[in-house]
Amino acid sequence: MFYGREQILNLWEIVQDEYNPEENKKYETIFTLANGYRGLRGYNEFSNKGWKGNFIAGIYDKSEAEVQEIVNNPDPLTIKFYMDGKAINLDNHKIRRFKRFLDMRKAVLKTNLEVELSSGEILTINAERFVSKNNVHRWAAKYEIVPKNFSGKLIIENTIDGSITNSVNDPYKEAKHYNVLKMKDLRPGIFLKSSTKDKAIDVIEATTLRCYRNNNNLLRNRSFKILGDKVKELYEIFLEKNETYTIYKYGVTYTTRDNISDIEKVSEEALVGFAFEGYEKELKKHSEEWEKIWEDIDIEIKGDEKAQLGIRFNVFQLTSCANKNDSNISIAAKGLHGEGYKGHIFWDTEIFMVPFFIYTQPETAKSLLLYRYNTLSGARENAFLNGYKGAQFPWESTDNGLETTPKWGKDYLGNPVRIWTGDEEIHITADIPFAYWEYFRATNDEKFLFDYGAEIFFETAKFWESRLEYNGHKDRYEINNVIGPDEFHEHVNNNAYTNYLARWNLQKAYEISNLLKQKDFIKYDTLCNNLGLSEKDFNNWKEISEKIFIPKFDNTELIEQFEGYFQLKDYVINEWDKNKMPLWPKGVEINKLDKTQLVKQADVVMLLLLLEDEFDSNTKKLNYDYYEKRTMHKSSLSPSMYSIMGLKVGDHHNAYEYFMKTVMTDLENNQGNTEFGLHAASTGGSWQSIVYGFGGLGVDENGVLNLNPWIPEKWEKLSFKINWKGARITINIFQDKVILESTQDLTVKVFSQDCHLISYKSFVFDTSNTI
Amino acid sequence: MFYGREQILNLWEIVQDEYNPEENKKYETIFTLANGYRGLRGYNEFSNKGWKGNFIAGIYDKSEAEVQEIVNNPDPLTIKFYMDGKAINLDNHKIRRFKRFLDMRKAVLKTNLEVELSSGEILTINAERFVSKNNVHRWAAKYEIVPKNFSGKLIIENTIDGSITNSVNDPYKEAKHYNVLKMKDLRPGIFLKSSTKDKAIDVIEATTLRCYRNNNNLLRNRSFKILGDKVKELYEIFLEKNETYTIYKYGVTYTTRDNISDIEKVSEEALVGFAFEGYEKELKKHSEEWEKIWEDIDIEIKGDEKAQLGIRFNVFQLTSCANKNDSNISIAAKGLHGEGYKGHIFWDTEIFMVPFFIYTQPETAKSLLLYRYNTLSGARENAFLNGYKGAQFPWESTDNGLETTPKWGKDYLGNPVRIWTGDEEIHITADIPFAYWEYFRATNDEKFLFDYGAEIFFETAKFWESRLEYNGHKDRYEINNVIGPDEFHEHVNNNAYTNYLARWNLQKAYEISNLLKQKDFIKYDTLCNNLGLSEKDFNNWKEISEKIFIPKFDNTELIEQFEGYFQLKDYVINEWDKNKMPLWPKGVEINKLDKTQLVKQADVVMLLLLLEDEFDSNTKKLNYDYYEKRTMHKSSLSPSMYSIMGLKVGDHHNAYEYFMKTVMTDLENNQGNTEFGLHAASTGGSWQSIVYGFGGLGVDENGVLNLNPWIPEKWEKLSFKINWKGARITINIFQDKVILESTQDLTVKVFSQDCHLISYKSFVFDTSNTI
Repeated sequence: MFYGREQILNLWEIVQDEYNPEENKKYETIFTLANGYRGLRGYNEFSNKGWKGNFIAGIYDKSEAEVQEIVNNPDPLTIKFYMDGKAINLDNHKIRRFKRFLDMRKAVLKTNLEVELSSGEILTINAERFVSKNNVHRWAAKYEIVPKNFSGKLIIENTIDGSITNSVNDPYKEAKHYNVLKMKDLRPGIFLKSSTKDKAIDVIEATTLRCYRNNNNLLRNRSFKILGDKVKELYEIFLEKNETYTIYKYGVTYTTRDNISDIEKVSEEALVGFAFEGYEKELKKHSEEWEKIWEDIDIEIKGDEKAQLGIRFNVFQLTSCANKNDSNISIAAKGLHGEGYKGHIFWDTEIFMVPFFIYTQPETAKSLLLYRYNTLSGARENAFLNGYKGAQFPWESTDNGLETTPKWGKDYLGNPVRIWTGDEEIHITADIPFAYWEYFRATNDEKFLFDYGAEIFFETAKFWESRLEYNGHKDRYEINNVIGPDEFHEHVNNNAYTNYLARWNLQKAYEISNLLKQKDFIKYDTLCNNLGLSEKDFNNWKEISEKIFIPKFDNTELIEQFEGYFQLKDYVINEWDKNKMPLWPKGVEINKLDKTQLVKQADVVMLLLLLEDEFDSNTKKLNYDYYEKRTMHKSSLSPSMYSIMGLKVGDHHNAYEYFMKTVMTDLENNQGNTEFGLHAASTGGSWQSIVYGFGGLGVDENGVLNLNPWIPEKWEKLSFKINWKGARITINIFQDKVILESTQDLTVKVFSQDCHLISYKSFVFDTSNTI
Repeated sequence: MFYGREQILNLWEIVQDEYNPEENKKYETIFTLANGYRGLRGYNEFSNKGWKGNFIAGIYDKSEAEVQEIVNNPDPLTIKFYMDGKAINLDNHKIRRFKRFLDMRKAVLKTNLEVELSSGEILTINAERFVSKNNVHRWAAKYEIVPKNFSGKLIIENTIDGSITNSVNDPYKEAKHYNVLKMKDLRPGIFLKSSTKDKAIDVIEATTLRCYRNNNNLLRNRSFKILGDKVKELYEIFLEKNETYTIYKYGVTYTTRDNISDIEKVSEEALVGFAFEGYEKELKKHSEEWEKIWEDIDIEIKGDEKAQLGIRFNVFQLTSCANKNDSNISIAAKGLHGEGYKGHIFWDTEIFMVPFFIYTQPETAKSLLLYRYNTLSGARENAFLNGYKGAQFPWESTDNGLETTPKWGKDYLGNPVRIWTGDEEIHITADIPFAYWEYFRATNDEKFLFDYGAEIFFETAKFWESRLEYNGHKDRYEINNVIGPDEFHEHVNNNAYTNYLARWNLQKAYEISNLLKQKDFIKYDTLCNNLGLSEKDFNNWKEISEKIFIPKFDNTELIEQFEGYFQLKDYVINEWDKNKMPLWPKGVEINKLDKTQLVKQADVVMLLLLLEDEFDSNTKKLNYDYYEKRTMHKSSLSPSMYSIMGLKVGDHHNAYEYFMKTVMTDLENNQGNTEFGLHAASTGGSWQSIVYGFGGLGVDENGVLNLNPWIPEKWEKLSFKINWKGARITINIFQDKVILESTQDLTVKVFSQDCHLISYKSFVFDTSNTI
């Protein structure tokens, strides 16, 4: 169990305390260490049964693969320890003690083990590893080795493995995305330079070992060798019984994406510098960086250890994925944690993850949003290729904004099967401006809105304008042949979510044009000239937006997910599995889901959440009740949204269950595919469940921050911090009160009552009589 | 157990009927298929826990290794079958049935298995493989697959693996001896061309798959890919429940050693031709070749199934190592079966293996002898580098006759330790002419003796002449500072074996000079001019040979292994382990063996066997009795010799034990290192035990064949064939008679009585009253 056998002893540690090689790949994802620049899967050096993963953000390659995918680069982690000619390996030796854990506070992965070799020698190894947040080019590992009952010779083999491929689990898809250009002996240390096949992005991995005792170097009999695409160095250490030997492994990584002129020279010097500075010094700086981050992101849940540990895991790994210093990259659906979805970037980032960054690390949010601005040229080309105007953001994005959703998959017989999401799941083009707006609303960052957001809004509005189909007969605009968030239904007409968001997009573009014109006419004029727009266009957007059709049930407020949805065969979920996940209602044919009202994931409910203030609470409840019974949650993006909406409409019990499902997605592997990478959207959804759901945080039509908190009975306290228009607000929710503290004077509403916060003074709101 | 659980069912099959991954490497050696041109280790395609081995005779490389070693080439065998995305693997799946066996009669390796996948699917696979003796460039495999209880899709991944290295078990010694030059798609089929690092010997492996049913090609959805140093092709087959699918894999191998002009073109055409001709046709030709070979080599032992199966295994694998069409190669100490001793060639070949070929396949013997003639230039260089004349054959030889014994090893602490065998174990230089003489004696092939043997004798005689040290004080010649066959003692003076063989070498050289002069003066004169020799030299050899010192105990016939041996501390073996192998006598210090009379392996006893007719039976018994008690048999070369001598001196019981130990060396892994390759000398020793020992075959001073057979009580019959001076003699030994049949009229002696054999008529010799 991830939280220890019986009890959670440390609410900052994710623990694996039983070794089962079948679980190696799952734990590799959970134990991935990432610093935004790169992710190193939590490969266990003492087993061969895993998938090595060295992903560097922004390095994609197609070459022999079907579409561009994140490159699994040469692995610098590999190290082997030999006793009596046999590698120390958990799969071969008797394991006397085993514990592996992620210390999230310091962002260090630790392994404690004791093995007994066949000849009876007992060896204790305490290993740890970190991927520096202080200097993203650095990573290091430390191995403390104690021969308990013998003296003997240990051989250490340090390797950079240039034989790594993508998709090792799939013989048809397996691909090697780089050529090994150069391997070198750094005397000491080893060096491997690879280059991606399509774009020739060079990646250098360099590592070196150190082992001192009383200032004596213990690494003897060094040997260097190149074996095919692997470069190695070997050492011997003579172990004395019961003494402790500490071996440090230093690694540096540089790529031609770094915009450094001579990465070979730089990496070699950096490696020497790192080894000279030492492990502990860098670890300290790294942990201090994480301490600062935790100041921003930590959430405290008192009275629910599982939820506490879980939410920390989610915000930790989500933060690990982001790099505020590189606005040409974003966060992939599987983070930097695995090859799932080929490292592609979906709406998951803007709708599920970006809110977390907006409210906790707005500079990072800005960088993530800029990624879309920086890939506008690709989005424009997508629109052009599809016969539309403006910019059409890709359903799956890599380094250039071009659509990279595979057009074809294969069925069981190897026959081609068309994949339609890249053509039809066009709501992404509204989801991105939505995130820009959310950022603006929380930060008041007008400059960013005008410099970047306006162009995003205008270009996407252009797209929608050209995409809308006028139905003269009904005098309305329609968007036909789409896929909404619910992917069970393809080629549908007038998906409510898509149409509503498109309308919102056009209206906001119109509003922003007015705002910009009024506040900075020069910028307005320049942008209009650049984009070929004039006031007539903006007015037209407003006009057509008002005629966009939103399907509803008769004259009620029950929104029809898409036109004709209510005519489909109706099944209602009435059984759940032991994990409380819905079971298929009896009689449903899995290959004819499009003929039923069953829904893969939140769709109408998503809409009600995103545009909260456009719907009253009755509408929310009506729709929640209807769709909740029909949503199969076959996406990890779904439970968090139902959790939030559940809290809004008073379905507290289900809301807590949905929250726990979300927060445990990877730790309990409840989607069954954690081995392929982090469910990054779900980590963002977990944060939203806490802050938007239990915290009840919202923004009203006047732009005022509202809190309508509710916490489960067993929670003594829920605390978190948010950034709001330049201020930092600490929110502590108790069963009977809410205590707020802001770094600036500020007015917020708690349960609709104005609260005037004075900077750095606690504001106590008594809630004991509220509900 | 190699011979089946309880009973031996088929005396032609070596069976593994329990799967234990720990034993994979041992069975890889035992199940190696070789055709003299190449050896393919018996790698189990359904496990990753082994050492792939593709050795091509004569391809050596040093590059980063310490000395030249046999190259482990890219592996063409690799094939994987995937069901439900998982490779079928004995280490992961439930094994319902398992049997692997070597059908020695047809030289086919078969694997029968039934596995149950985690989802309950049961799959039967019957695989077989052969390495053609008909066309040495061809090898093939066949896989019969039956899905017992399901229909489903099978993915087949055919690979040529160019990542293979030597010494994978030793991180310090691991080396890759080739570069991958080219990988190609043969549409269908895959191609990999590698080139050795030092001498740029190119090796091409090419393979292709076929699967037809009712003339329909069942291999669908082909995909080709290159992943680093691996080239692959993938197919899908749709399996119907309970149907049988037969997949053939065809392979061809060509190298620039083949003296073919365009090996790329040739190999591609050969592959197409092979696949077109078909598996069964080539298998038939291959098996017919083996049928012919078995006509020559088979030994029948009635009444002792273990001995029967064992002796067949030994002569089968020994024959597999030889290639009569290539006289630039010889048989390595570990055959073509493993990397042990780096593929080097020792005295093992001439003294232990060549006799088998002389008497069963004289053309092959000739080719093996020619290897030494063809490497004379290296042997001359060795002598020159050491300050001697003539030719000094290397203790360890590869492709050029230069000494390749490593000069330095490492002790446990990594400190250099001098290896002296290459400098001091000089008896090899007499062992080689000895084998030439044995060949001549059995074949009367005067032409070969004059064309090649004479030069070998003269050049080695020159060496001995220069190597002898005259002791003026004692008026004798000595050979000091040597290692005899017993390697426990280094830097010894006047090793009896070495001195005796050197004397014999000089005397025979003198005799041959006379014979040649008399029979073919022109050849004699030419050779003398070529080698700078004259009658004076020959006479000198005779003279000095008579003064070579042979140490003995006082005035007895007990030969002293070397000068001073009898002064060493005397320990006598008095305990044996459960395998009846000697245990160290109490008090012996293993690191001071050179101070004791304990002997690693037959040394004096070897001498008594080789030069049988120079010693009377009392001398043999005296020495046997003395040394038998002091020989630890720490070499697989030892027990066979004691077996033969035991039979000569009447120690029948021990002789049988020694014989069984020899014959079981690899099958019972009684040296504990079968995984590193065949104990090839021991296979030859097994044959010698049978023919020289139980058959009692010898040649008397008049060159007449003598038989003094003795067989154990439980043996009803022992039969074998030998070639003798152009005739083929079949020898059937019963408890009470010997039946002989010859293809030519011939006189031989049985128990010292003349027997006049009439061609193709059985000659019955009644032995019931003889002993």
